[in-house]
Amino acid sequence: MAMLSQPNDGHDHPEKKDPDTTPKQVAGVISSQDPPHPAKDVAEERARTDWDLKEMHEFLEGDEAKSEQILRLYQSIERDPILQTRPEQFDYTQKQERELVANRINQMTKFLETEPYGKFRRRLQLMTVIDPSLGIRMLVNIGLFLNCVRGNGTQKQFDFWSNKKEAGIVKQLYGCFGMTELGHGSNVAGCETTATFDEKTDEFIIDTPHIGATKWWIGGAAHSATHTVCYARLIVKDVDYGVKTFIVPLRDSRHSLLPGIAIGDIGAKMGRQGVDNGWIQFTEVRVPRFFMLQRWCKVDRQGNVTLPPLEQLSYISLLEGRVGMATDSYRIGARYTTIALRYAVGRRQFSKKAGEPETKLIDYTLHQRRLLPYLALTYAAAVGTDRLERQHEELLANLDIALAKKDKLLLKNTITGTKSMFVDSGSLKSTLTWLAADLINETRQACGGHGYSSYNGFGKTYDDWVVQCTWEGDNNVLAMSAGKTIIKTVQQVLNGKELKDSTLEFLNAAPELSKAKKAVIRIRDHVDDVDRVLKAIAGLISKFSKDLIPISYQSWDSIGAQRVILSKLRCHYYLLETFNERLNDKIKAKSPARPHLENIIKLYYVTNILGPFIDEFLRFGVISPQVAKYITYEYPQKLCANIRPYVIGLTDSFQQPDNFINSLIGKYDGNIYTNYLESVKDVNDPSNYKAPYSEALEAMLNRSALENRERSERGKAAADILSK
Amino acid sequence: MAMLSQPNDGHDHPEKKDPDTTPKQVAGVISSQDPPHPAKDVAEERARTDWDLKEMHEFLEGDEAKSEQILRLYQSIERDPILQTRPEQFDYTQKQERELVANRINQMTKFLETEPYGKFRRRLQLMTVIDPSLGIRMLVNIGLFLNCVRGNGTQKQFDFWSNKKEAGIVKQLYGCFGMTELGHGSNVAGCETTATFDEKTDEFIIDTPHIGATKWWIGGAAHSATHTVCYARLIVKDVDYGVKTFIVPLRDSRHSLLPGIAIGDIGAKMGRQGVDNGWIQFTEVRVPRFFMLQRWCKVDRQGNVTLPPLEQLSYISLLEGRVGMATDSYRIGARYTTIALRYAVGRRQFSKKAGEPETKLIDYTLHQRRLLPYLALTYAAAVGTDRLERQHEELLANLDIALAKKDKLLLKNTITGTKSMFVDSGSLKSTLTWLAADLINETRQACGGHGYSSYNGFGKTYDDWVVQCTWEGDNNVLAMSAGKTIIKTVQQVLNGKELKDSTLEFLNAAPELSKAKKAVIRIRDHVDDVDRVLKAIAGLISKFSKDLIPISYQSWDSIGAQRVILSKLRCHYYLLETFNERLNDKIKAKSPARPHLENIIKLYYVTNILGPFIDEFLRFGVISPQVAKYITYEYPQKLCANIRPYVIGLTDSFQQPDNFINSLIGKYDGNIYTNYLESVKDVNDPSNYKAPYSEALEAMLNRSALENRERSERGKAAADILSK
Repeated sequence: MAMLSQPNDGHDHPEKKDPDTTPKQVAGVISSQDPPHPAKDVAEERARTDWDLKEMHEFLEGDEAKSEQILRLYQSIERDPILQTRPEQFDYTQKQERELVANRINQMTKFLETEPYGKFRRRLQLMTVIDPSLGIRMLVNIGLFLNCVRGNGTQKQFDFWSNKKEAGIVKQLYGCFGMTELGHGSNVAGCETTATFDEKTDEFIIDTPHIGATKWWIGGAAHSATHTVCYARLIVKDVDYGVKTFIVPLRDSRHSLLPGIAIGDIGAKMGRQGVDNGWIQFTEVRVPRFFMLQRWCKVDRQGNVTLPPLEQLSYISLLEGRVGMATDSYRIGARYTTIALRYAVGRRQFSKKAGEPETKLIDYTLHQRRLLPYLALTYAAAVGTDRLERQHEELLANLDIALAKKDKLLLKNTITGTKSMFVDSGSLKSTLTWLAADLINETRQACGGHGYSSYNGFGKTYDDWVVQCTWEGDNNVLAMSAGKTIIKTVQQVLNGKELKDSTLEFLNAAPELSKAKKAVIRIRDHVDDVDRVLKAIAGLISKFSKDLIPISYQSWDSIGAQRVILSKLRCHYYLLETFNERLNDKIKAKSPARPHLENIIKLYYVTNILGPFIDEFLRFGVISPQVAKYITYEYPQKLCANIRPYVIGLTDSFQQPDNFINSLIGKYDGNIYTNYLESVKDVNDPSNYKAPYSEALEAMLNRSALENRERSERGKAAADILSK
Repeated sequence: MAMLSQPNDGHDHPEKKDPDTTPKQVAGVISSQDPPHPAKDVAEERARTDWDLKEMHEFLEGDEAKSEQILRLYQSIERDPILQTRPEQFDYTQKQERELVANRINQMTKFLETEPYGKFRRRLQLMTVIDPSLGIRMLVNIGLFLNCVRGNGTQKQFDFWSNKKEAGIVKQLYGCFGMTELGHGSNVAGCETTATFDEKTDEFIIDTPHIGATKWWIGGAAHSATHTVCYARLIVKDVDYGVKTFIVPLRDSRHSLLPGIAIGDIGAKMGRQGVDNGWIQFTEVRVPRFFMLQRWCKVDRQGNVTLPPLEQLSYISLLEGRVGMATDSYRIGARYTTIALRYAVGRRQFSKKAGEPETKLIDYTLHQRRLLPYLALTYAAAVGTDRLERQHEELLANLDIALAKKDKLLLKNTITGTKSMFVDSGSLKSTLTWLAADLINETRQACGGHGYSSYNGFGKTYDDWVVQCTWEGDNNVLAMSAGKTIIKTVQQVLNGKELKDSTLEFLNAAPELSKAKKAVIRIRDHVDDVDRVLKAIAGLISKFSKDLIPISYQSWDSIGAQRVILSKLRCHYYLLETFNERLNDKIKAKSPARPHLENIIKLYYVTNILGPFIDEFLRFGVISPQVAKYITYEYPQKLCANIRPYVIGLTDSFQQPDNFINSLIGKYDGNIYTNYLESVKDVNDPSNYKAPYSEALEAMLNRSALENRERSERGKAAADILSK
């Protein structure tokens, strides 16, 4: 397994000539040459940074307080003996990784008990970037489990489980989230686990009727959880009321399984090996009636069921996961563009002219074209997901106020806001988790063979990452759902409705936009005008949706692919709109950061929006054909060239420290080869040059001839005897 | 970690209604419902297969003999106690995996010693699909090492190392391939390890001058190899003759490292954990002059160096790896489309109408659109890579004859053939390994959460696979190289040259094609005409290349991205041309297989060629804008609908047995849930419901209150004392 290509593959190296026979090595039997100096190259390029890193970091994170909190948390994590990363962890087996995660959970609870909750959540969010298994193992309890109790339970039920029983600080009780079943993923309403009311004993009987209803993938169930919130069909007096939620204890205070509970480890996974996902089967497990979460649906002692209208609100609290995944996409993007761009500056390959030093990877046009659009996307994702986070926090706060004060107007607005949040979070979660997966893949390939080494981080992060495209809303299902809402919204606007308090308000222009005959972007200069680009996206969404409305009457299913495209366009509109606003609001005209951000925003929309969807923009006449080549080839190349000299500063601006970046070839000092070799040696002692199974290997190599091993029974002598 | 999405994400399920209070559960406290019947669904769909699987398999594999050999080999592997797959292997640690691979190598040598070499190579190729680490560990010796000795050494040198020293049967000697260095991947000519001739002792001194020249990624070096072929700069009398090859012993017959050799384990990798990749540093290691491979370049006793003109031919033998990777892409594609399509038939999610059974995944339009183009691609890749294999074998055979008989005409043709082979193998290797990576990713996502379980195969295969995009020619470097040759070829043809004996002969039409004003595909019917589609691709290649010629005079570098596109188009032309010819040659007009293959070939080119490159086809006026929407949306949907009823038979036609497919949800019988749960239980004993580290976890949950743990030193009592 050598990472090779043959010389005559001709990366544009100079033509081969006859060897020059002038002596050019130092005399003597051993040659000695100048080693590579990647750290020097990185330092030189770093010196070009002509803006204030603090200003840029605050731009990315949204404000000074958040930026400072994040920098302090980086420091806290880097110093913490348990939370910090170590190269040898890339060699951990599943068992070791699970134990490491358990130790980190223990360490994290110490902060959870003592620091403000907002700060702790930010800490957990950052830890999730470097240890996604830790993130999800804590989040199944303090996120999914408790959010479900909060959203579906009464205030007293929440107080009981979270505070009195201390699940809120991961003490006494550890909750998991028993939603998905072996046969039911996206279709939660189709869950088949049953919760049958037994009027005689005032209990629910939780039961798994058949193999398909086995709870599956339940994070924390295999070894950690003491309780689960169980999604099960409420059955009262032979009537099926659909899926509701129930607290079901799984283990006693000595952590032994309770009777009727069968649990197993799901075993090996593509990634997140540190999570103890389990399956659960319930056999006639009885829980008291008051273990049902009864904020909305209630069952009384006599088995009377009440179903209030606002039950949909119970799902708001579950949106948190999607918002978090969108933000994770930004931080993962920052981490991997930093690694790949530092490497691209420090690494040299082929000379452009004979006799000259080899060229830095980043000086190849294609290399710029592969990486810089992702850098620009990461900037856009930073700003856009910061807005999404704030939008989500505000929504939750308003909901609490509205319900507490019984403020009907605020409640109405909150419901409108929830609708926006469903589209925005669904569309950002799906689009950005997909793009982040692509980004990790492309940055890995851009580091050549070294991208494949675990110690540079790509492999584990990719494997841990990609489940984000599937869970808490499969990306295609989420995107189709967002796309459907967009089409319906355009239809409503075309029918005269005016959108208010919705993040889709830009679609109020759909009537004109969808009728426009003239292209929005007709000449090259138009591509430089952000407002025009926003109008072009809005125009495409309007025309595309209008085109699909008649088909949607026949079959929503048949336009699945188109709905996914609409969702992606919506995400990009959101990101671009936010980026543009923040650039105008926060960065002064004379700030040295401004010209860089202007290049970045252009590269973002040219290579992530206009380029990838160019066939749709052309098909609907939103962009004129004569600027197509400019958009797909010429302008991106020019913008890349503008950004190229500043790649070190632009990635330094993310301010992620070495221990967080956790990549031997991606460290701040750019000393690629020394950092890499020394750590590889630390983790893999070179004195172990024989494998543990070396004896068998040597025996194979030193085996005797086939004839001997066949006891010479096929040889001529045997033939002579056996043939007679 | 539950794989969930909320009910109101609205996969087009029916509108929510008030619960129907008519009793519909069986009476009693426990409900019992009908479990899912995926096996029944798969069996029913299998019954639709109306063609002969044997005929189809022969079509895919090229001929009856090859098809039969492959089926027998599948059987042999499935029965073999060491070579067969087992679900528990997905849980193996790196150490276990390496030992498993070593045992398999031992088993494989028994076949290598006794069966015809061609059959053994096919066995190894198939084993590579299920155990890529085994494949590469054997291939570094019998492929790369021995091919290098064959290509660069004299016949006697090859006989010595391969036969007398028995490296050819992995006995006595185990060779590795010491090409790549820490600082040099693609640019082999830039390697910095030195081989300095010492005239006094008639030896070469092999030396690593600095850290950047450390041999890196060397498969088998860490623990297995006894020798390496070392790529090093030949230095004689202070003159640097460039990179040549030398046999350097690494370990003695007791497998201990020789003096001057430092070797270490590269450690953890994204995939292929079963390979013992190592790094090597040489410090004044002396080897006799006759350890230099001297088929082309020779150094005599006095230090006179001769460099004959045909040295380029030494690289032919290294093309084998690229050809193999192209073929691997087909077999991996077959394996994963089989899994995902069986699952898509057996798995149901959401009902299209209230009260109806849930819908099979494959009956969603988007699901068809996601998977069936990959199925079609796999068929095209089967046929195209079979041709590439045969073309490669013929080339090697002719080269041997030409050199043995000193047949100058044949040698000239062989050199032309080599040029074709460089473009074809580079372009197919890069395009198909990228597409296979996409295919594994998309099929995994199409299996939802279950795609993330190791036992269904996706994760390990993806991780093992993606290095194929990097090694033996980085895909972008290879594609740019192929693209460059294509542009130059078009230029030559435009200047009047006629291509002969080249697989690029279709470009002889470039003069007319590049001038054509009328689009090749103007109306819908044109899309059904394969010859016209071939002409459209040739037309696009011609026009695109012609457009780039003037820029190439300035800078090849600036058109890197365009060269990659040309390479992809060249790959698809090759696949489509071959598919079309074989369909016409081998499948009778009345064969029941024909209509299916006609749908498949159309879906292949519409969704893999015309669609993805539509913007280029439009920009160069090869396709008229009025058919664009038909090509990107309407026709693919129709073709998918035609193919949809036969997906079980179309994947059965690959004939890969269960043990080879090695996926719990992808088995032939379609009994998804039972196969899955039972094996997960076998591998993860449910009686282990406590983690090995459970004590620490329980101690955390049962910890005392914070105040106690702080020795009450922050409480009011302490405050009273300490404040006084």
